[in-house]
Amino acid sequence: MSGKEKPQWEQISAAKRKALLASLEGLIPDPDILPPDSQLDVTSFPASSGWFKERELEITAASASLILTNIKGRTWSAEEVTRAFCKRAGLAHVLVNCLSETLFDEAIATAKSLDSHLNSTGETVGPLHGLPISLKDNFNIIGKDSTVGFVSWVNDPAKYNSNIVDLLRDAGAVLYVKTNVPTAMMIPETVNNVFGRTVNPLNRSLTSGGSSGGESALVAFGGSPLGVGTDIGGSLRIPAACTGIFTLRPSFGRFPTLRARTGLAGQEAVNSVNGPMGRTLEDIVLLSKVIVNSEPWHKDPKCLPIPWHPVEAKTKLKLGVLWDDGMAKPTPPVQRALKETVEKLKKAGHDIVDWAPDGHAQALGILGRMFVADGGKSIRKILEPVNEPWRPEMEYYTKAQELGVYDMWQLQLERSELCKQYLDRWHACDGLDAILAPTTPYASVENGKFKHVGYTGVYNILDYSAVSFPCGVTADKDLDQSTGEEPLGDMDAEVQNNYDAANVHGMPVSLQLIAKRLEEEKVLSMTETILKAL
Amino acid sequence: MSGKEKPQWEQISAAKRKALLASLEGLIPDPDILPPDSQLDVTSFPASSGWFKERELEITAASASLILTNIKGRTWSAEEVTRAFCKRAGLAHVLVNCLSETLFDEAIATAKSLDSHLNSTGETVGPLHGLPISLKDNFNIIGKDSTVGFVSWVNDPAKYNSNIVDLLRDAGAVLYVKTNVPTAMMIPETVNNVFGRTVNPLNRSLTSGGSSGGESALVAFGGSPLGVGTDIGGSLRIPAACTGIFTLRPSFGRFPTLRARTGLAGQEAVNSVNGPMGRTLEDIVLLSKVIVNSEPWHKDPKCLPIPWHPVEAKTKLKLGVLWDDGMAKPTPPVQRALKETVEKLKKAGHDIVDWAPDGHAQALGILGRMFVADGGKSIRKILEPVNEPWRPEMEYYTKAQELGVYDMWQLQLERSELCKQYLDRWHACDGLDAILAPTTPYASVENGKFKHVGYTGVYNILDYSAVSFPCGVTADKDLDQSTGEEPLGDMDAEVQNNYDAANVHGMPVSLQLIAKRLEEEKVLSMTETILKAL
Repeated sequence: MSGKEKPQWEQISAAKRKALLASLEGLIPDPDILPPDSQLDVTSFPASSGWFKERELEITAASASLILTNIKGRTWSAEEVTRAFCKRAGLAHVLVNCLSETLFDEAIATAKSLDSHLNSTGETVGPLHGLPISLKDNFNIIGKDSTVGFVSWVNDPAKYNSNIVDLLRDAGAVLYVKTNVPTAMMIPETVNNVFGRTVNPLNRSLTSGGSSGGESALVAFGGSPLGVGTDIGGSLRIPAACTGIFTLRPSFGRFPTLRARTGLAGQEAVNSVNGPMGRTLEDIVLLSKVIVNSEPWHKDPKCLPIPWHPVEAKTKLKLGVLWDDGMAKPTPPVQRALKETVEKLKKAGHDIVDWAPDGHAQALGILGRMFVADGGKSIRKILEPVNEPWRPEMEYYTKAQELGVYDMWQLQLERSELCKQYLDRWHACDGLDAILAPTTPYASVENGKFKHVGYTGVYNILDYSAVSFPCGVTADKDLDQSTGEEPLGDMDAEVQNNYDAANVHGMPVSLQLIAKRLEEEKVLSMTETILKAL
Repeated sequence: MSGKEKPQWEQISAAKRKALLASLEGLIPDPDILPPDSQLDVTSFPASSGWFKERELEITAASASLILTNIKGRTWSAEEVTRAFCKRAGLAHVLVNCLSETLFDEAIATAKSLDSHLNSTGETVGPLHGLPISLKDNFNIIGKDSTVGFVSWVNDPAKYNSNIVDLLRDAGAVLYVKTNVPTAMMIPETVNNVFGRTVNPLNRSLTSGGSSGGESALVAFGGSPLGVGTDIGGSLRIPAACTGIFTLRPSFGRFPTLRARTGLAGQEAVNSVNGPMGRTLEDIVLLSKVIVNSEPWHKDPKCLPIPWHPVEAKTKLKLGVLWDDGMAKPTPPVQRALKETVEKLKKAGHDIVDWAPDGHAQALGILGRMFVADGGKSIRKILEPVNEPWRPEMEYYTKAQELGVYDMWQLQLERSELCKQYLDRWHACDGLDAILAPTTPYASVENGKFKHVGYTGVYNILDYSAVSFPCGVTADKDLDQSTGEEPLGDMDAEVQNNYDAANVHGMPVSLQLIAKRLEEEKVLSMTETILKAL
């Protein structure tokens, strides 16, 4: 390699980015009309750009539920819906760098065929007939890359579909893009050496979160009506919260995870799950139902045969409020949002108690140790073929020592005991329905400064069901000044130091509602009840 | 230590055995009236001994369901039922060495209190009111040892109850004995350095199987109406089959396993489960229902919130028959039993297809590697405090190298892929309801010669639900002569060489019915259907 040549991995990445951009040709406007880099909020650009027809704007603003109704009722064709989202996704990519793969031609062909079917038979092919759905990069689609942010996985197209890909297509969905992730999906922002960084369309100086942060950016921009991400430490909830959209982190076994790609293959001590990301709670419920009603346990041996079951909505909920997790206090807008939400819930007659963060620090420690229990070997083996350097965010992995299986068993014992203590504490709080907590300490945060995943990670260790939802409060630079309180510790100091009221001004704040393990129906129903009180 | 003194561990064991025997005082007859060691079948001894009253014989011959009815109807008192089983269990121990702990005084006190409750209120305290239930040694009962066959765990009484202990007591059961296991519960017979060997009451030269072989011997002798054992490679099904009783191996998560003791603490790659052992299918169903209906998921975080649900009994089943597992052919009585059973099922109108053992050898290999993934370290640490020697049956553990976590993840990947292949093959066999297979290659086998756990272990790797049931065929030295066929390999050669038609003459043969994961209700219902055809 001469001094001038870029390293092999950079050349591969550059070519991949170029090919991705080339696939957007015709969908994206002349660079001249794009907003300047200094324009941080780009969400209003589609409407003001003149690049979209009124109908395209109407389609891409619609909820998934409305799109399905309009396609079924032939108000809209699947083809025009798909074309509109392809176009808006293309623009999203140019503005916030959120895609990793495109399948536009296949998507349009699928949409046409769905239209013909509906026109000729009068029947939809399934409950998602014609709905474009975006997928996180790690879901395999035959013939497409699933790089998971690794250079050595560029140009290594999948030979099989992820289970959920077949499931969605069988239900009539149109798959048209895959979205960017951080390296190995193990950073709470979305940045890697292949595609670079995805930023937040509400404020491009802020992160869209991670690891499902390509997905959250795309959905928040209106480039997707509904997406599917994954979560092993907060990777659905963190990006949803950073962009003000909805998600459900189901317990493991409810949604099929088979044949998705991961940087930690074979790791089972804490299980990655997948879940829906969307702009309305109704859409999250819709996709969850479709997935479970497809009876995925017949195909994914790790799925549980638990049919989707209606739960009766309780009018009076008993909620435990986690004000802080003992490691990092929520930043001022999140503190205020939680307080205001609690006041509204009290007014609506719900029973509110405090919930202490007992075991949360231990849970986060266990989670971290489980992620690096192989001494970073799995990830190192994927970086090595092209000498891709470690991302600086992953220093923890480079320093980890591999555990022997005996020590791993001790770690699993520690986790199991913690799960038991937490469950006992839940039941000791007589009649507790759910925990209300910050999803993250941040509304969002400047790119590169998302540090604390404690609020989400504990519920991965516990495998509880959780919804992250925007609570209607937005950060306000006047109301949400730093309080200058004594920090709880190093992490809290870092979180509070990184807080800048002006930077996050106007950002939506999300909260997290947590129910016990495998209570997906209940946590969704309770979120609906809570939204009514807000 | 002088040359004459026994090693410390032998002294501890001898004292423990002596104390156990002392606890039987008053319950067991004068040694003079006991059958001679040369009498192999001791099951008829209680009736012929003169040691039992007619009513005690009647009680101990009754099914659990009948006992419950008679206690509820006040035909029998809980106290007299408990006393009868204490007495018969004591005799069982003297004859086949099946106990590890006794709780006679507590049991009688509990029974009396249950009687008072019923007499004064007219109500039972729960669905198991007054029923004596025996437990495998590894279930913790406060104040009692759970040695799991380890000398260093003698005189280390439990500080807490296993979850299932509380559950059974809350349901009204009377716990009165714990039963012997092999060291670490990792030998398919029941032998350890504390209590020695449990033998088969139907033929004391044969094994009662393992690891729940104290339990199977006790139940088969009539010393318990219903017991609870555990299964991680066949430990419920093997002993049930060796003694001609019934068991259900549920999938993990259906029955609570919390706070039971194990030699491989923290090992989760293949999960140990517990299940009922009894003399009738009805009793197995009864206990399974009670356990699940108690909603154990509120207390054991690994339990799944799947309520017991009725299934409609299919009149025509599609059954795949596993004639052999490719590693060891069933011995002649088991081959004949399977053939005769299949003929009867065909006559009854069921649809029978062949089921190939694809993946079975791989599954057994994976299972073995998972058991010793810590290089035997967990067990070594329990042996060391008293320099207890390794049992010769566990040589495999002494030679194992500990895996690093990376290699463990690869092993888990291999297992997950195998589970997927197996599930796909099941669904490719259109409408398959269950697999009918030998439970073991043996009716039973001479003590020390049980070598092959392949027929059961594969379903631990798959976590499928399975019932082992006596099929009504007994081994016959004339009909079941060795065929002299070419062995499939080394294991088959060993199994066939160890076969002795005369030794196992008269022993009941059991088969295994296997349904998919978490189909406990279905596999029990199908077994009922099959029993009707036999």
